[in-house]
Amino acid sequence: MSADLSQKLVNLTKLDLQYDACGEVASGTTPADLTLYGSFVFVGLPTENILPDGVLDGKPRLDLPLGEGKFDMTMGVKTARAMKDLPKADWVAGCTEAAAPGKPPLIFRQLLDLESSTYTYILADAYTRDAIVIDPVDTMAERDAEIITEMGLNLLFALNTHVHADHVNGASKLRALFPQMRSVISRASGAQADVAVAPGDSVEFAGRSVVVRATPGHTDGCCSFVLDDRSMVFTGDALLIRGCGRTDFQQGNSKSLYESVHTQLFTLPNDTIVYPAHDYKGRGNSTIGEERMFNPRLTKDIEEFQRIMAGLNLAYPKRIDAAVPANMKCGLYD
Amino acid sequence: MSADLSQKLVNLTKLDLQYDACGEVASGTTPADLTLYGSFVFVGLPTENILPDGVLDGKPRLDLPLGEGKFDMTMGVKTARAMKDLPKADWVAGCTEAAAPGKPPLIFRQLLDLESSTYTYILADAYTRDAIVIDPVDTMAERDAEIITEMGLNLLFALNTHVHADHVNGASKLRALFPQMRSVISRASGAQADVAVAPGDSVEFAGRSVVVRATPGHTDGCCSFVLDDRSMVFTGDALLIRGCGRTDFQQGNSKSLYESVHTQLFTLPNDTIVYPAHDYKGRGNSTIGEERMFNPRLTKDIEEFQRIMAGLNLAYPKRIDAAVPANMKCGLYD
Repeated sequence: MSADLSQKLVNLTKLDLQYDACGEVASGTTPADLTLYGSFVFVGLPTENILPDGVLDGKPRLDLPLGEGKFDMTMGVKTARAMKDLPKADWVAGCTEAAAPGKPPLIFRQLLDLESSTYTYILADAYTRDAIVIDPVDTMAERDAEIITEMGLNLLFALNTHVHADHVNGASKLRALFPQMRSVISRASGAQADVAVAPGDSVEFAGRSVVVRATPGHTDGCCSFVLDDRSMVFTGDALLIRGCGRTDFQQGNSKSLYESVHTQLFTLPNDTIVYPAHDYKGRGNSTIGEERMFNPRLTKDIEEFQRIMAGLNLAYPKRIDAAVPANMKCGLYD
Repeated sequence: MSADLSQKLVNLTKLDLQYDACGEVASGTTPADLTLYGSFVFVGLPTENILPDGVLDGKPRLDLPLGEGKFDMTMGVKTARAMKDLPKADWVAGCTEAAAPGKPPLIFRQLLDLESSTYTYILADAYTRDAIVIDPVDTMAERDAEIITEMGLNLLFALNTHVHADHVNGASKLRALFPQMRSVISRASGAQADVAVAPGDSVEFAGRSVVVRATPGHTDGCCSFVLDDRSMVFTGDALLIRGCGRTDFQQGNSKSLYESVHTQLFTLPNDTIVYPAHDYKGRGNSTIGEERMFNPRLTKDIEEFQRIMAGLNLAYPKRIDAAVPANMKCGLYD
């Protein structure tokens, strides 16, 4: 989508600033009774009007006579909001600027289920607060709902990287709390969901989106989600930090997993951050570059990889008999 | 410090580009046999030479005739490295741009000890790879050392937010592996360390630094570390996500804790990301704005806060009798 960011900003924050759709500040505009925070880049203003560190936070430091000039909202704005007239929860920040210019900043949270070591991710467009959650866990739905509610997010989709065998997914519980939310899983998984996605499909949340890549091997229906600016990839159980998902149950296939990782994930930029579905040593993330270099399994050739995977001799997953049937219905128990 | 970034880049990466200390690209420079990746901003070049998304990753897309122009290394460079001539581990990426212009990007990792729910943080200057670790855990030293080694980091300091009671700190084990590393703790803690710091002290790792703030209350010697651009604060047990450290043992004092959080932490920008020493629900981070709004204890007035803290009736910490004496010597057992 081609987001008209400045217009969004006006609608959302009721800024007293007058600027047109291109981000021009009208002559004579003054900060008056306006409180801004975040980082700003002002283009075309006399240098002496720009604070040394370019950061304004809180009214006391907003001593910038705006005057006439271009207000560049794609490069430097982390969060540009007027705190007055906003619902309280709306100024909760913690945003990440998009690597690609023109996209709204991202609200991003990584959450861990300490029981199954499953990572859940919340992503939101910082301007509209439209949000998605990736791989929610049923027993943690209350925690996730609290964060979503407090941050004033509008939860649109619960995405599942695959039919998990170690925990029941939280989509069903979250939908009970957020009725507008729809569950999403790959068509290839064969599971029931509100939305079935195919490789190349894009799941949009206002000005941001993730694109589906098929990464089968751990299961037939495994997919990864690549953030629009390719700064992050959510790899499920296909690629783990210095490891990968097992291939000895469900429709596991080590040859297929190797090809998925090498053609769909290792082709991303080296500095794309890898956010997996699990880590059993408490590591939060990795990068494509690191895994291409240091993954002890996936740096091997395909024959050696298949030998490694065939020789793991892992225990039968404790919760698989309850979890898989429930997850084929996105978290509904029979 | 006033970092000469361009010079560092030359020293580190042996780029074939010819540019002077101000980042000017000499006339006639061509990409030739050079491979770059990362995001770049080229200033002063004809527009038609700039790729639509401003992102170059991998040799196939480096079709930019550099020509003469200014190569702006403070705004847009995430990672500017020539992959040839580099030690293998040196191109491992995953950097965060500094909010304040002119600082090198940050390598940042959050790690969890699943046993004690303790977060450990690794921060490094992405250009020089000089690094610090905050609150390492002794039983996880091997995991941390593997990451530090694989990423080619030069570990300078192990910082402790306080004398922990729930785990033995990993500084001693890490120093055995990285002999140049020095342990750091607040002078007010009374603990032995290579470096004793006081409020306002800055711990530098090449072009980046953290500044010490005294945040007593959980213990007398508790401190928080604020990243140079104020984008992150490491709060130890003073401020937790929707909570705070207990005040009923060591030198715990709820009045002092309340004052620490309100004067030293809640005065940071709302979008400063809070990275605590623990979270028992698997939440990775929060923001100052959120905690000012939603912390169920610290949003109360001081009298009610003191009543809440006096009524917690928590169990005696399991490991305190072994951990505290060891941590008074930064992780050395008697």
